[in-house]
Amino acid sequence: MGLEAAHADGARAAPARRSGTRQQIIDAAVALIANRGFSATSVDDIAAAAGVAKGSIFYIFGSKTDMFEQILSEGVRRLTDDLRAAGAGLTGASALAALVTELLRNVHEHPAFAKLMTAEVFRTGRHWQDSIRLVRDESMAVFADVVHEARPDLDAALVGAAVFGATLVTGLEWLAFQPERTFDEVRAAILATTHGLLPG
Amino acid sequence: MGLEAAHADGARAAPARRSGTRQQIIDAAVALIANRGFSATSVDDIAAAAGVAKGSIFYIFGSKTDMFEQILSEGVRRLTDDLRAAGAGLTGASALAALVTELLRNVHEHPAFAKLMTAEVFRTGRHWQDSIRLVRDESMAVFADVVHEARPDLDAALVGAAVFGATLVTGLEWLAFQPERTFDEVRAAILATTHGLLPG
Repeated sequence: MGLEAAHADGARAAPARRSGTRQQIIDAAVALIANRGFSATSVDDIAAAAGVAKGSIFYIFGSKTDMFEQILSEGVRRLTDDLRAAGAGLTGASALAALVTELLRNVHEHPAFAKLMTAEVFRTGRHWQDSIRLVRDESMAVFADVVHEARPDLDAALVGAAVFGATLVTGLEWLAFQPERTFDEVRAAILATTHGLLPG
Repeated sequence: MGLEAAHADGARAAPARRSGTRQQIIDAAVALIANRGFSATSVDDIAAAAGVAKGSIFYIFGSKTDMFEQILSEGVRRLTDDLRAAGAGLTGASALAALVTELLRNVHEHPAFAKLMTAEVFRTGRHWQDSIRLVRDESMAVFADVVHEARPDLDAALVGAAVFGATLVTGLEWLAFQPERTFDEVRAAILATTHGLLPG
């Protein structure tokens, strides 16, 4: 991935400034790509929106495709970490409610990334598909594990995907089309939908 | 939309051939755009894949953007019609099961369109956003109406979106990552997830 190498370089050179620039580029790229798509967003656009020189993007990320691959992988990995932390020590319906709440919080906090992830994660024929497959699987597995533990009679991988999908799509629907709803209303609607699934 | 006009033209000129060409272009465009995205797909690519002259695409659809707008609107309208037909005369849990089954069948039958719809429907800043908003709302409303009738205590619009999302994402997950599962297994997993939602 070259990410660790990039971090190590940054630490040797100018850690705070480097990490600030990197995050500025990521934020600008996610916002632009979420609305226009990957191909319609040029490195020039990203550099202008981030307020950095175009050369910085190539220096930090390698290429536009490498940059996007790193953004997707890191974002999904952050989501997985957040989900694991939210569900730690819980089982059954309480665990599932904690995961739904945390995924919804993530969509609310990073709406552009959530759109981009939704748009890209089912595409085939993309350069980066294999590299995000692994982190994607880990994220889905957090839901599947909770289902499997409480209801071994169910197909945990598919049911986990269903709860993930219910939360993701309802969160995006909320932000794009029903912004007058509150976080708690949206959360309650998702939990009502999956109410009969797990005991506890 | 210009669609009715295009159909009328076709009927006057060479109905069978025209409608065959139009569908070839749509099928090619959906397949390419679903995997590469809208901007990365050129009219030349679409013409080559459809085996038609580039001029036919402009003659039939006007522009690349108009073409995509028509594809999205028509596809979502077809889905809405299928959902309404599937739920006709049913209420409560039976109606919801019929809608889930029909949406899953649609995803299975038109996987490229399902990917493309998922990728595009939450984007903002696209030219065609307003035009697909209406048909999108109609599609979501089929689910919301069933929820509202059986459970007026719930936020039907959000719960409808949750069931829609659970079905769409599980269907895409199935086709992209777990193709060894059967239709009935996937359907059963979604229905288990929403099992406690509606009586009947």
